[in-house]
Amino acid sequence: MATSQLISNSDIAFSLKALRTNNPLVHCITNEVVQEITANVLLAAGASPAMVVGEGETEQFVEIASALSINVGTPFTTRIHIMKIAASKARQTGTPWVLDPVAAGGMVWRDQVIFSLMHLCPAAIRGNASEIRFLAGEGQGGKGVDSTDKSDEAVHAAMKLAKLYNTIVVVTGEKDYITDGTTTLHTTGGDPLITKVVGTGCSLSSLLAAFICLPGDKLRLAASCCAYVKKATEIAKKQCNGPGTFKPFYLDALYNLNPEDFHD
Amino acid sequence: MATSQLISNSDIAFSLKALRTNNPLVHCITNEVVQEITANVLLAAGASPAMVVGEGETEQFVEIASALSINVGTPFTTRIHIMKIAASKARQTGTPWVLDPVAAGGMVWRDQVIFSLMHLCPAAIRGNASEIRFLAGEGQGGKGVDSTDKSDEAVHAAMKLAKLYNTIVVVTGEKDYITDGTTTLHTTGGDPLITKVVGTGCSLSSLLAAFICLPGDKLRLAASCCAYVKKATEIAKKQCNGPGTFKPFYLDALYNLNPEDFHD
Amino acid sequence: MATSQLISNSDIAFSLKALRTNNPLVHCITNEVVQEITANVLLAAGASPAMVVGEGETEQFVEIASALSINVGTPFTTRIHIMKIAASKARQTGTPWVLDPVAAGGMVWRDQVIFSLMHLCPAAIRGNASEIRFLAGEGQGGKGVDSTDKSDEAVHAAMKLAKLYNTIVVVTGEKDYITDGTTTLHTTGGDPLITKVVGTGCSLSSLLAAFICLPGDKLRLAASCCAYVKKATEIAKKQCNGPGTFKPFYLDALYNLNPEDFHD
Repeated sequence: MATSQLISNSDIAFSLKALRTNNPLVHCITNEVVQEITANVLLAAGASPAMVVGEGETEQFVEIASALSINVGTPFTTRIHIMKIAASKARQTGTPWVLDPVAAGGMVWRDQVIFSLMHLCPAAIRGNASEIRFLAGEGQGGKGVDSTDKSDEAVHAAMKLAKLYNTIVVVTGEKDYITDGTTTLHTTGGDPLITKVVGTGCSLSSLLAAFICLPGDKLRLAASCCAYVKKATEIAKKQCNGPGTFKPFYLDALYNLNPEDFHD
Repeated sequence: MATSQLISNSDIAFSLKALRTNNPLVHCITNEVVQEITANVLLAAGASPAMVVGEGETEQFVEIASALSINVGTPFTTRIHIMKIAASKARQTGTPWVLDPVAAGGMVWRDQVIFSLMHLCPAAIRGNASEIRFLAGEGQGGKGVDSTDKSDEAVHAAMKLAKLYNTIVVVTGEKDYITDGTTTLHTTGGDPLITKVVGTGCSLSSLLAAFICLPGDKLRLAASCCAYVKKATEIAKKQCNGPGTFKPFYLDALYNLNPEDFHD
Repeated sequence: MATSQLISNSDIAFSLKALRTNNPLVHCITNEVVQEITANVLLAAGASPAMVVGEGETEQFVEIASALSINVGTPFTTRIHIMKIAASKARQTGTPWVLDPVAAGGMVWRDQVIFSLMHLCPAAIRGNASEIRFLAGEGQGGKGVDSTDKSDEAVHAAMKLAKLYNTIVVVTGEKDYITDGTTTLHTTGGDPLITKVVGTGCSLSSLLAAFICLPGDKLRLAASCCAYVKKATEIAKKQCNGPGTFKPFYLDALYNLNPEDFHD
């Protein structure tokens, strides 16, 4: 396995401060299931979400937004068309955008959608180990939307994919790995209970869009986003009694965590 | 600024009692993000929500419903078509309907949708200060779905808009203003934390539809709805530790508040 | 009224153990309002939900999934088309599927959709008393999505419907009745507060799909699902202070309940 470095608390504090100062407007084109939690995660963290999918306004909104997030969790033809228009526009205007290739490797039709979006120059791709391994030409995808691989096993694939597409690749799991193909950062902590709450991974991808559009080093901003989410997960896990109470406590933790909570 | 009067507790008690007695069936055509919270707010308050958007049943359901709520938060062509059919039918049958012109002033295409709906005689229009100012020909809209103006600054615009469209205009914000162009009522209280929970404004618009279809003075019914929501907000704010726990406590408060809780 | 038998604790324990062991992948094509709670209920219970609705992948996913759940809560033309494709494929592949005929009897167009799906051999149909009575040719449907009849009054209709379509019919209400037309089981307990939380009935239908695909007697598996939900409802009811806090506690209870909690 390639060497990776733990993201530092000072980097996380810097990134979270930038998020709170800039309050980026994030254009989210996400799946049918996770729209509410995605908006609530972004609001709690300090970004402004806007779900814009209209035929006559998507392109215009890409120009207005600070960043764009595209998630292919529940693709259908008309929405895929909007995703492609939005990503194309983002490439043209230089708006940083994040791709969440949900369930990549599971179905041919979806994979074609994912690959056509990957060619539109995402600033970051965030997936679980099975998704990232599949996109890098390894493994065979997961079970539905769940990973059957561990994030440790996808670091090499992530680096390969990052180099190939000249992007940042984020593999989330027990540890999160964040790589540009040359340098790899990681985060620790969190709790597996988060996988029992739908949309926590998808909303992380949209939050990633909020972080990578901030001024600063993109790789450290992306890793800071992951570390901030891991920390909020740990806080919520201590307070909750299961996945139901986890969610409100998780949103509270995202809201209440401040840059000064990250120090050595 | 024009003079406005605080809605009285006896009016709020009267209106909430009417809601609980009548249990109105509210037809909601709302955006992709807020459907669940909208249904839960209506259920908690004592109304019956029904999200009906089918090509072959929307018109029929307008006839069955006590009121209609239309929200343009995530418009797309086929859904806009349904909105227009529903609003046209409501005008024809005299079903009171509420328009939530989300992000008015932000994008030309959406503004055209909003203006075409406004011509179909909504019984009330509910927006934030930036949206209402834009619709009245003032200001330039907000930032995405967020207001950049204060509600105090939109009272004149609200009155103008109410007169022009012969409707009730509700501007929500730190104070809420409710006007028919001649008389203006307001509510105080609430808490800004509510803006960190997606769908609280949108669901208020649908709840407004539940109130204005009740027997009584429409303006006082509308203002009572706003005051009831402000009160539930205050209760939830005291119990919660952030936007995550705010939401369940807010729904509980809507459910547990009774007419007798509003007295002088 | 026909005789029915209370589902036994040993059956419930057996069924829940099978769910946790098999972790079935459930393909959900459900309405716009309840997608998040449906996914969270399935995750909390121990199943893997996947909402797949794409034109190019729905058929393929039916083959991959352990079970399919179709809910007609917010039907529109393109989605109805997908529902029919999925149900047809499920019939062909022998994948057990559950139909939730939301608001049957309320509107002609919707009823046509429901009847065309019923002809595609669902393994189970889950509805409230008004819906089931209407489908069996009795009564006139409910008020919007709410039942105006009691479940006791729909047992005969449920048996008739089960025989006619050679399926299991589940009528939920104060008591739940589960019948194959010959044998009828029932569950007791629960709490009416659950009707103030949107999607609790719809998510039960999807959870039913997770149970009936397990090895064992289909009728007992279906009744066990209902009893498990009743038990979680009682636990949440004791902890909550209204419908807002009910939901997180309900999901926690589904997650924390284990086979050994069901004993005589």
